[in-house]
Amino acid sequence: MANIKYEIIETIAIISESPKGWKKELNLVSWNGRDPKYDLRDWSPDHEKMGKGLTLSAEELKTLKDALVNFDELE
Amino acid sequence: MANIKYEIIETIAIISESPKGWKKELNLVSWNGRDPKYDLRDWSPDHEKMGKGLTLSAEELKTLKDALVNFDELE
Repeated sequence: MANIKYEIIETIAIISESPKGWKKELNLVSWNGRDPKYDLRDWSPDHEKMGKGLTLSAEELKTLKDALVNFDELE
Repeated sequence: MANIKYEIIETIAIISESPKGWKKELNLVSWNGRDPKYDLRDWSPDHEKMGKGLTLSAEELKTLKDALVNFDELE
């Protein structure tokens, strides 16, 4: 991970927080100076370390949103 | 990954599909026979190979849903 540069442009949501302070976050992140993408990932308290996650385009995030809105089992 | 057993209990949404047929999916997945969790991940066309992703509890998925419902920038 040492050579990956990233900038968190916007924090959209904190999904959860672990007892050690790691947070699962939905952010808008620019990786290596490229156009920012949506990113769902675990982060250490100071945002210095990152865990597993995945990036999503705006279209993918919109599709996910629509699916969740119609997913009644969560209620 | 060879020793990880998984069962896709339910496919909730296909988020996107790549030119090679890999799909980004939201599934309910049981890992190694444990209670199923929500899982957002890339899968090969036959579900034999998996890519990066992350698991979410029902509570985390609900929090994500509520955040997306209120996130107006996607519209």
